[in-house]
Amino acid sequence: MGVIGLITDFGLNDNYVGVMKGVILNINPDAKIVDITHNIKSGDILTAGFILMGSYRYFPKDTVHLVVVDPGVGTDRKAVIIRTKNYYLVGPDNGVLSLTAEKDGIVDVYNIENKEYLLSPVSDTFHGRDVFAPVCAYLSKGRELGSFGPKYSGRLQQISFPKVTVKGRSIIGEIVFIDKFGNLITNIKTEDLLNTFGRYKLSEIWVRLKGTKIKGMSTSYQSVSLHKPLAIIGSFGNLEVALNGASAKALFKADIGLKVEVGYEKNGISR
Amino acid sequence: MGVIGLITDFGLNDNYVGVMKGVILNINPDAKIVDITHNIKSGDILTAGFILMGSYRYFPKDTVHLVVVDPGVGTDRKAVIIRTKNYYLVGPDNGVLSLTAEKDGIVDVYNIENKEYLLSPVSDTFHGRDVFAPVCAYLSKGRELGSFGPKYSGRLQQISFPKVTVKGRSIIGEIVFIDKFGNLITNIKTEDLLNTFGRYKLSEIWVRLKGTKIKGMSTSYQSVSLHKPLAIIGSFGNLEVALNGASAKALFKADIGLKVEVGYEKNGISR
Amino acid sequence: MGVIGLITDFGLNDNYVGVMKGVILNINPDAKIVDITHNIKSGDILTAGFILMGSYRYFPKDTVHLVVVDPGVGTDRKAVIIRTKNYYLVGPDNGVLSLTAEKDGIVDVYNIENKEYLLSPVSDTFHGRDVFAPVCAYLSKGRELGSFGPKYSGRLQQISFPKVTVKGRSIIGEIVFIDKFGNLITNIKTEDLLNTFGRYKLSEIWVRLKGTKIKGMSTSYQSVSLHKPLAIIGSFGNLEVALNGASAKALFKADIGLKVEVGYEKNGISR
Repeated sequence: MGVIGLITDFGLNDNYVGVMKGVILNINPDAKIVDITHNIKSGDILTAGFILMGSYRYFPKDTVHLVVVDPGVGTDRKAVIIRTKNYYLVGPDNGVLSLTAEKDGIVDVYNIENKEYLLSPVSDTFHGRDVFAPVCAYLSKGRELGSFGPKYSGRLQQISFPKVTVKGRSIIGEIVFIDKFGNLITNIKTEDLLNTFGRYKLSEIWVRLKGTKIKGMSTSYQSVSLHKPLAIIGSFGNLEVALNGASAKALFKADIGLKVEVGYEKNGISR
Repeated sequence: MGVIGLITDFGLNDNYVGVMKGVILNINPDAKIVDITHNIKSGDILTAGFILMGSYRYFPKDTVHLVVVDPGVGTDRKAVIIRTKNYYLVGPDNGVLSLTAEKDGIVDVYNIENKEYLLSPVSDTFHGRDVFAPVCAYLSKGRELGSFGPKYSGRLQQISFPKVTVKGRSIIGEIVFIDKFGNLITNIKTEDLLNTFGRYKLSEIWVRLKGTKIKGMSTSYQSVSLHKPLAIIGSFGNLEVALNGASAKALFKADIGLKVEVGYEKNGISR
Repeated sequence: MGVIGLITDFGLNDNYVGVMKGVILNINPDAKIVDITHNIKSGDILTAGFILMGSYRYFPKDTVHLVVVDPGVGTDRKAVIIRTKNYYLVGPDNGVLSLTAEKDGIVDVYNIENKEYLLSPVSDTFHGRDVFAPVCAYLSKGRELGSFGPKYSGRLQQISFPKVTVKGRSIIGEIVFIDKFGNLITNIKTEDLLNTFGRYKLSEIWVRLKGTKIKGMSTSYQSVSLHKPLAIIGSFGNLEVALNGASAKALFKADIGLKVEVGYEKNGISR
């Protein structure tokens, strides 16, 4: 125990993240704090939720994952601790934790209410510092969940992550994340390909976006000519569209939400 | 003991910050190094001083706070260690430490001169690596202040942080910091409001900048309609002008130094 | 032992670096991970190699230096551990480690092949997470080099770092790195000046780029008037062209590869 993972939309120009770490180390000098990212677009709960879902399971069991993307700070939105099968998820109850909570399996949910564990006074605008950092520090020291407040009796807020649809023999998904390399990450997973096409050959899959049809799937970015597009199962376990040595985002002028179609064709015959 | 907080203008593209951490861990393998920010505008001593002042007290007692914003590196400007009531402040004597030193209370000041604690040779351009990192590492191991050099006999450099002025029944301040969300942070503090207006109601305060008058103060960003402006006491303890869900900096085309006026009005009558 | 230095081109917006740290801490909870930089331009092996070469020796002996700039991920390029005289260098065999390996002195090279030490399954696109992070974590715990795979029998890939040329009594070098301040760092080292000019006086060196001749070398950025250019031996031990208080990159519209000439002139007479 003792690892705390951080996801925020605070950026790295201001002192907000550093101050949270000061608060944590003041309570638990042995905490190991890991920045997952602080460059979530301001208030972008959906992306923060996706990033947590793609990260949490690589951390040691019982890691405390804190997400502070919290446009409702200062309102009556709740602050929660979700005990899942293997982790602690902490943050505002605005849906940002919901995808991961569901995936890892919810064991217990508690409200954060006990002022004894918070900084005093609690500011109106920075619960990352005054509420979440101290609670995570105490959690990482092994404090009981019940110490922080009562069991949460309400229903947790959800975010609705876009789902793929199957239309005849093709899958329609969309771009849900774009990384630093300009790789276009869709919501289409290996399971979707297996469910729709059965056991498939990579060479017989095709992927279409914005009128471009990519034939076959690759297993490395360099498997096509320089600056040419390819489709690949990326590190999130999702289908990505990428270029060899350049940005697919720039080439396709693509953005979050762009539709991507996947089909299957054997010997030139769609099946 | 053992925490070192870092504020620099080195950015995160180069290896400067990482190399400083290598130097520190080589001397004190148990040091816990916390990045406050490295994205201070090159040479911006005033902002670095403001950031330190808004951060230092959230760290454990005896944290070593190092600030390397040092346009005079290689000249005869002094390098100092300031022992304050609760912390160690280390950096060039160019005023960057002065606001915090004064606020926490100066106990002792020493010159850094003893070459035994520095890297050899000391470069002309990177005292962060060759002077400040090793000194902070030894400090964090508990080395006596007198080891590093003689007591500082001179007068510490100061920076002059802009002060508010009171004009009749209104307070004139200015924007001193703009954060990642585009929130406009002024130099007007709760104490200024109390001193000028006595015990006040949030709803009876007004704030004016660039011809826009904001009536009443809020306690959350979402207390006004989406994309509308509000005034709030932010996490620095200063009055901020912000938008719900968007950037006040962008809306007001505001920059550091812009004047902000605050007044008090009861039942529509200015008092 | 236990320090791991990281250089990647992953940026700080995505979760890639954080996930690597999660993997490392899961294997070695006591690892001390230091970010050198993650903002290498995508696929820029030469700059990553230069950054490592300018950083490695400031870290504790036996630090594991991991570089993940890996456009060939998923192809048959090798993954290697290079044991040098004082460090471990880990990364893809694409030349990114070669400058440092040669400088510190190669003791042994091993292939990373033993799947027992890798995440399972290994993805096609993110060996930083699935291969390099776990191997570095086990290395930092003291695992024997032979555990990870066989001795490397091939010849390591090299990168060719640009060399200076001497033409009569002048040295022709070029800009190899530009830092956050816009300082233009050349490949010309103090040794080059000594070899060509013998023992020299700083005031008698001149430096020319893009038609501007800078007379004399400085020992601080503030030794010339504000916004004027100067030449200085910088913290890499290389000759830099800089401005006092502004960006030389902007003034000279300079980029990597721009030629820089250095000569020697005594009493106005070139020698």
